[in-house]
Amino acid sequence: MTLRVGVVGAGYWGPNLVRTFRGTPEWDLVAVCDLDRERADRVIGDRTTVEVETSLDALLARTDIDAVAVATPADTHCSMALAALEAGKHVLVEKPLASTRADAERMVARAEELGLVLMCDHTYCYTPAVQYLRALVQSGELGDILFVDSVRINLGLVRPDVDVFWDLAPHDLSILDFILPNGLSPLEVSAHGSDPIGNGRSCLGYLTMPLGGGTIANIHVNWLSPTKIRHMVIGGSRKTVVWDDLNPQQRLSVYDRGVDLDLTSDTADAAEKRLVNVNYRLGDMHAPALPEREALGVMAREFAAAINEGRAPLTDGHAGLRVLAVLEAASESQRRAGAMAPVSLPRVPQLASSSPGAGFGGGW
Amino acid sequence: MTLRVGVVGAGYWGPNLVRTFRGTPEWDLVAVCDLDRERADRVIGDRTTVEVETSLDALLARTDIDAVAVATPADTHCSMALAALEAGKHVLVEKPLASTRADAERMVARAEELGLVLMCDHTYCYTPAVQYLRALVQSGELGDILFVDSVRINLGLVRPDVDVFWDLAPHDLSILDFILPNGLSPLEVSAHGSDPIGNGRSCLGYLTMPLGGGTIANIHVNWLSPTKIRHMVIGGSRKTVVWDDLNPQQRLSVYDRGVDLDLTSDTADAAEKRLVNVNYRLGDMHAPALPEREALGVMAREFAAAINEGRAPLTDGHAGLRVLAVLEAASESQRRAGAMAPVSLPRVPQLASSSPGAGFGGGW
Amino acid sequence: MTLRVGVVGAGYWGPNLVRTFRGTPEWDLVAVCDLDRERADRVIGDRTTVEVETSLDALLARTDIDAVAVATPADTHCSMALAALEAGKHVLVEKPLASTRADAERMVARAEELGLVLMCDHTYCYTPAVQYLRALVQSGELGDILFVDSVRINLGLVRPDVDVFWDLAPHDLSILDFILPNGLSPLEVSAHGSDPIGNGRSCLGYLTMPLGGGTIANIHVNWLSPTKIRHMVIGGSRKTVVWDDLNPQQRLSVYDRGVDLDLTSDTADAAEKRLVNVNYRLGDMHAPALPEREALGVMAREFAAAINEGRAPLTDGHAGLRVLAVLEAASESQRRAGAMAPVSLPRVPQLASSSPGAGFGGGW
Amino acid sequence: MTLRVGVVGAGYWGPNLVRTFRGTPEWDLVAVCDLDRERADRVIGDRTTVEVETSLDALLARTDIDAVAVATPADTHCSMALAALEAGKHVLVEKPLASTRADAERMVARAEELGLVLMCDHTYCYTPAVQYLRALVQSGELGDILFVDSVRINLGLVRPDVDVFWDLAPHDLSILDFILPNGLSPLEVSAHGSDPIGNGRSCLGYLTMPLGGGTIANIHVNWLSPTKIRHMVIGGSRKTVVWDDLNPQQRLSVYDRGVDLDLTSDTADAAEKRLVNVNYRLGDMHAPALPEREALGVMAREFAAAINEGRAPLTDGHAGLRVLAVLEAASESQRRAGAMAPVSLPRVPQLASSSPGAGFGGGW
Repeated sequence: MTLRVGVVGAGYWGPNLVRTFRGTPEWDLVAVCDLDRERADRVIGDRTTVEVETSLDALLARTDIDAVAVATPADTHCSMALAALEAGKHVLVEKPLASTRADAERMVARAEELGLVLMCDHTYCYTPAVQYLRALVQSGELGDILFVDSVRINLGLVRPDVDVFWDLAPHDLSILDFILPNGLSPLEVSAHGSDPIGNGRSCLGYLTMPLGGGTIANIHVNWLSPTKIRHMVIGGSRKTVVWDDLNPQQRLSVYDRGVDLDLTSDTADAAEKRLVNVNYRLGDMHAPALPEREALGVMAREFAAAINEGRAPLTDGHAGLRVLAVLEAASESQRRAGAMAPVSLPRVPQLASSSPGAGFGGGW
Repeated sequence: MTLRVGVVGAGYWGPNLVRTFRGTPEWDLVAVCDLDRERADRVIGDRTTVEVETSLDALLARTDIDAVAVATPADTHCSMALAALEAGKHVLVEKPLASTRADAERMVARAEELGLVLMCDHTYCYTPAVQYLRALVQSGELGDILFVDSVRINLGLVRPDVDVFWDLAPHDLSILDFILPNGLSPLEVSAHGSDPIGNGRSCLGYLTMPLGGGTIANIHVNWLSPTKIRHMVIGGSRKTVVWDDLNPQQRLSVYDRGVDLDLTSDTADAAEKRLVNVNYRLGDMHAPALPEREALGVMAREFAAAINEGRAPLTDGHAGLRVLAVLEAASESQRRAGAMAPVSLPRVPQLASSSPGAGFGGGW
Repeated sequence: MTLRVGVVGAGYWGPNLVRTFRGTPEWDLVAVCDLDRERADRVIGDRTTVEVETSLDALLARTDIDAVAVATPADTHCSMALAALEAGKHVLVEKPLASTRADAERMVARAEELGLVLMCDHTYCYTPAVQYLRALVQSGELGDILFVDSVRINLGLVRPDVDVFWDLAPHDLSILDFILPNGLSPLEVSAHGSDPIGNGRSCLGYLTMPLGGGTIANIHVNWLSPTKIRHMVIGGSRKTVVWDDLNPQQRLSVYDRGVDLDLTSDTADAAEKRLVNVNYRLGDMHAPALPEREALGVMAREFAAAINEGRAPLTDGHAGLRVLAVLEAASESQRRAGAMAPVSLPRVPQLASSSPGAGFGGGW
Repeated sequence: MTLRVGVVGAGYWGPNLVRTFRGTPEWDLVAVCDLDRERADRVIGDRTTVEVETSLDALLARTDIDAVAVATPADTHCSMALAALEAGKHVLVEKPLASTRADAERMVARAEELGLVLMCDHTYCYTPAVQYLRALVQSGELGDILFVDSVRINLGLVRPDVDVFWDLAPHDLSILDFILPNGLSPLEVSAHGSDPIGNGRSCLGYLTMPLGGGTIANIHVNWLSPTKIRHMVIGGSRKTVVWDDLNPQQRLSVYDRGVDLDLTSDTADAAEKRLVNVNYRLGDMHAPALPEREALGVMAREFAAAINEGRAPLTDGHAGLRVLAVLEAASESQRRAGAMAPVSLPRVPQLASSSPGAGFGGGW
């Protein structure tokens, strides 16, 4: 059954949703809603019978739509989604799900009460690469996860409303949530942000999360890098995968390389182990062929399937909530920076002779 | 004047020093010293008149050497260097300068008292790339330094004696010390290490250092990466340079890209600034031609020049000391991890329905 | 003034033209024409008032279109374009302009007689990279062109109707025609094709063209390569540019490197020169920042501008004709292969002992 | 048994042989021979008992050497090698084996008559990559070889004595000879060279060789390229391998990709085949782990093993001869260029209106 949808927001991301719903057979794009009618008109183009609404109420009052897709600023997500749910519409929301965890919890709870689908558009999770990564991790082929290192940097739009963690890290966090067997649930979150240009909020930073059992995840986000890098390494006890999203000819490389320690318990106290040997696996690399498929279309079809099958979508409200929980903790970590008491460095005396390259002085 | 040198230690790094001193006209390699005579014999090869000594005392007793180069384990550096200095020899020491900062301070002080050269073999500082980076930073062409991000990862020798910070980070730290106008003197050091294979010490980690004025430096070191990466970004207010040491055809790329904020003080309180405009520079990239020159040879010539000219070498004992200070702080930071109180994440309730992909349950 | 267009052909390339004309303000897409109504319907999508025609006559009979864009098989281009011209419509034709040079000449002549625009969709010429290349060559910054080497290979659709030269080389040839100061006019054309899979026509090959003055251009096209390469080098006497179209972060690299010979005429016969010196320039590399702009949109706007301004478009029928002339010569070169008399290799005697790795035999 | 060797020639390549024989346990480097004693002294360095000879006769008169390695200009190879053979020494010769095929044949014949080893230093054949390639081809894993494309370009030393084919192509040719099951024996050789800088001989060129059965090999050599490329593709009916020698982390990539045609003979005439179907394999890629091993050392050990075991080395005189035969044919092909009658291009009339971008003229 074709489902009918209205898109809310014709700004930055809305046009992508419009194009996607138009090109997906499971969906019929009925209307686009924006306060600015001209902007909405521009997005739908000429010679079309898609309609434009300029108020959310008008859109939600329509009986010819089953679902709405919300692509407005994050702090409007909660009220819009709740209104749509109350109007009996299924809801797709752009990332992040909301601007606070409390809001997100209300959205999730209400959708469950009303038996409606609440989906978070974690687009990356619908790319062939991330779907392969998920299967790789969850099949056990990598072994135990030892570390995750993600780099997402480029010369980006310096945003006045949110810091770089809220802007970029949701991508990495939603991917981690999608591929880790138990979803994203770090023990702790440490965020080291920096604002060297005086923007008032972090423009680059590092998010470090122990995941338990010695596993550590680190995310580097940066708006000030002149080059664009999208690079994630998932290190496992058996194999390690490198994802280079900007290399379409070889996005994924699975290495049969690693280090094994032979530990033995030869003492009475079994807990005391002794290193017997270090083994290096220096095996081959395997790069799977991946289909070329547009993630947004797959996401839109998952939204339709979840509605039609009465089930949670792969990236449901809970996934959005877990991502938000980490983002809030990152903000809290930055606020507590003073209290965190990282080690102060005992100052090295700055002798006249200690600057690099200076002469020893006249004594010689 | 040709100087005469003896190399101490024929293990991992010693052979490189032997080859270098042999190939450098400023130096005459007189002897190699190792407790294991066979190992020393192997390093100097057949049909040679270079001599082998099997005790440091015998080497230091020779009157036909002016200097010794120490390539033994770090915890022997201090005693060997002090003995050599007492014997009136100039001393070159492998990185790290010593195994504790206190030891290093004794070495530096004694060399100064005796008027002898104490040099730390920070080899990278003598590569054409790092020398170009130094000139770039110190000429002001980059503007103010906004951030430094360094990645040094590969499938490395898991060492039983030191953690990954002490093994790999000295390279990055010595480079930073060399290129920053005032040398390396971070305000704080935070180290997040991880030991997912049960080695007993960190096998991968992140070292974060605020350098003052919003500038942040981060170093990622990792023994468990299947791929080798040597990548440093130095972001400046005017230009940003990317150093990819594994791309010999384009090691350095200088980007005329960045973000400028127009801030204005239009209120009575001049300290209160308002963002007026964001300007993006999206200019060209410039990759300087670099000579191909072996760093070790340049280093050896600097050692000779410092002795002949009675001056401190570019990477003197103080440089080694500044590097050690950061390494000790990193260890302290890891020890204090509990006390650091990174933000604990309020646990997201793990509802049955919250695992990714699970169904909504029977209510539907 | 907005111009009105009909697209002919809803197969492989037609949908791109449909999307482009829809998204270009200078154009109003009125109708799509295909023998297969369903296919045309699919291309224009739902909720649209764009019309579908199933015969060229019906499309050309419409008075509400100013131009047609032809995206049908090459052997239909001539008849369709002539019919459209006779109906007073401006015409855009996909590459190659026609399937024979004679056809193309008729099209060019008729368009000139009727004072209508005939444009060839040489899309690559409208990319920022090729436009920069053209300016670079024509400004003289490269100096004299010494050589052009182009590689266009990938695992491609093995076509039953044309060989790999006719399928892929039009891209390279149209680019050369666009950037060379006098357009594409080689002295000779040699084509070495190969059909190792028994397709009946060349699946890979090399096209070599002396361009005069010692300059040589070579194009490697290949349907059987597992990797995709789009790489062109334009070597000049002063600088050399490398275009790597699959590296969006650095498509163009301009190298200040090269070889200069000092030649002198110190004999009575001035024509006899002697090499005095060889100078190597080993200068820096410069990578210009290029805008991200979709070539098809720029092409569509050029089509509109040519019509509105009553001028030839940048890639007019003559450009298409010059490309066709080389393609026909390439086919002729392959047909004449026997007559070309490449050097037959005097067979090396295949002694028993000559196979690699074989033993010397019992005599030893 | 350790063998004793003298190296002839202390110029460009000789020092590499000196270093290699010194570092290979199977060899004892006894003497270095050069007309220029100072140059020879410099190569062997200080504090050594390796001896210097300044005439070939003196070297060959020594009874304490078993073999000589010749690293002098190509046109001296024949006389030197013959003299050494007559003196009863085994001989290693740098590539190319000689400057004419006739000379090489005399060398090969004389070595066989005297029962001495004549080896050609085709160094690349002893790299782990080429040894893997050989096993891959000869095991049949690639299937039938469909094409070989090799690119060897960089800003090279423009040589006054030989053209770019003789300078660079021996590498590619010796590799092909080593990996192809029957060695290198092309049906024909076509060489398209170019000398755009007036050097008097080709500075760049393309060597095309049909190998039989529709298989084609092409070699692109170029001294004028600002970038260095070492890239070879060997396309097979089952798999295809890409060798990128400048990517030490992934030199070889074996792709399970290709095109299969289903051909059927449904007519009386079985020779007439009809294409039924085209199948594309779009499988995974596999990058084998290769050891890091210096090729020169492996080559030196093969030289020793061939002598000790009384067998031909892997790259014997016949291999050198097959390479020379192609080089001579390439020169002949260039000489015959006029007679080759590549297709002359019928000139496209250069109408005033045909230059790219020109206006249509007054007719409008």
